[in-house]
Amino acid sequence: MAEKEKLTIAVLSGDLERALAAFMLATTGASMGMEVSMFFTFWGLNIIKKNEGGIKSKGLMRKMLNLMNRGGSKRLKLSRLNMFGLGTWMMKRLMKDINMPSIDEFIIMAHQMGVKLVACTTTCGVMGLLPEKDTFRSEVDSLTGAAYFLGEARQSKVTLFI
Amino acid sequence: MAEKEKLTIAVLSGDLERALAAFMLATTGASMGMEVSMFFTFWGLNIIKKNEGGIKSKGLMRKMLNLMNRGGSKRLKLSRLNMFGLGTWMMKRLMKDINMPSIDEFIIMAHQMGVKLVACTTTCGVMGLLPEKDTFRSEVDSLTGAAYFLGEARQSKVTLFI
Amino acid sequence: MAEKEKLTIAVLSGDLERALAAFMLATTGASMGMEVSMFFTFWGLNIIKKNEGGIKSKGLMRKMLNLMNRGGSKRLKLSRLNMFGLGTWMMKRLMKDINMPSIDEFIIMAHQMGVKLVACTTTCGVMGLLPEKDTFRSEVDSLTGAAYFLGEARQSKVTLFI
Repeated sequence: MAEKEKLTIAVLSGDLERALAAFMLATTGASMGMEVSMFFTFWGLNIIKKNEGGIKSKGLMRKMLNLMNRGGSKRLKLSRLNMFGLGTWMMKRLMKDINMPSIDEFIIMAHQMGVKLVACTTTCGVMGLLPEKDTFRSEVDSLTGAAYFLGEARQSKVTLFI
Repeated sequence: MAEKEKLTIAVLSGDLERALAAFMLATTGASMGMEVSMFFTFWGLNIIKKNEGGIKSKGLMRKMLNLMNRGGSKRLKLSRLNMFGLGTWMMKRLMKDINMPSIDEFIIMAHQMGVKLVACTTTCGVMGLLPEKDTFRSEVDSLTGAAYFLGEARQSKVTLFI
Repeated sequence: MAEKEKLTIAVLSGDLERALAAFMLATTGASMGMEVSMFFTFWGLNIIKKNEGGIKSKGLMRKMLNLMNRGGSKRLKLSRLNMFGLGTWMMKRLMKDINMPSIDEFIIMAHQMGVKLVACTTTCGVMGLLPEKDTFRSEVDSLTGAAYFLGEARQSKVTLFI
């Protein structure tokens, strides 16, 4: 059997529009028969953080950072024109209008299509997150470091840094 | 005849400096004999939107979003140090000083060098834009979706996400 | 002897988290036996600018731009949650906590591991910087243009735009 072409996407940004672009490309790639993996790091970890649940990190500073930066797919904002939520709310309305999935739906869809979702362990530390499976949604496949990402990228036909 | 090596650039950002970087690389690639295509999505659509002309989108929300986010190559701003236009104005002055083309000139130049300019149809919807040729400058070659971008990227020697 | 696989990273951003990601990947790549080069452009030039020393650019506007945009590895800020320095300070504390190198240490480490650090001459002009070796830290290997970056990227297994 021929090997599948690989698509590897690093997601550093937690902006709504960049998260959307990443998932549009990941699901499109999967539907084109590519083997897709997404590697979430820094603000990108917000996208795959659990939406509910308290803050379990250790130490005051980590707790504070978590409070300032709640994260979760439902709290993502546009990088521009957020205007205290108005721009983000308008874009979400327009997404519904054209039947574009929400980030939440995109995560579930990508997972079901076999897209691998991976959290960067190294940057969990500086984002005040415990590098444990329990920090993230159930769709997240594994937690690993930069060497894993580069290993995947070396074998990929297309690598994107978003 | 040997096939040309391909360079594919996705432009999600509408920041002045990222638009400049994208066009510098696209025109340099073309002058090096590469086959270049640029795929504009989200804020990147602002770069290739017409500078003049009224707002023709349907529905109140799209009209409002268009008003808030006029777009057009002449309205791009720096992501940092914009300082109510001062930083952007200063950079534009320095661009002239070193004979760097403006974005407007870069678009025309890229088009003349055979760089393909493509608008993402899917994200037109969430940006409040009508996915029609008439929304964009005459240099734009076509409107298409994420599958087209990935198809190009798979055949490319270099793919950049800006 | 087999040729080494190449990793080429363009760094346009001067945000602390993107600079960290770039150096984590560059040093990881080098430790995996890849031949790594980093190409700094626009705000990315701030990362490799000297931390000390006066402003030597010519002309009032360049001097002003330099004053507004001091640069240097020690002045990088987070793109979000900077909160007048609080968020950036907290992340730097957490970096120490988990023994992550500072940007300063990363630059020295990358240089010692053979990572090539290259400054983009073309964008020096629009950032108000003199395109001379003396503008940058001693670890910077050379100053060159976009054609050099694309030439490297064409030969690379992995190219990232950060």
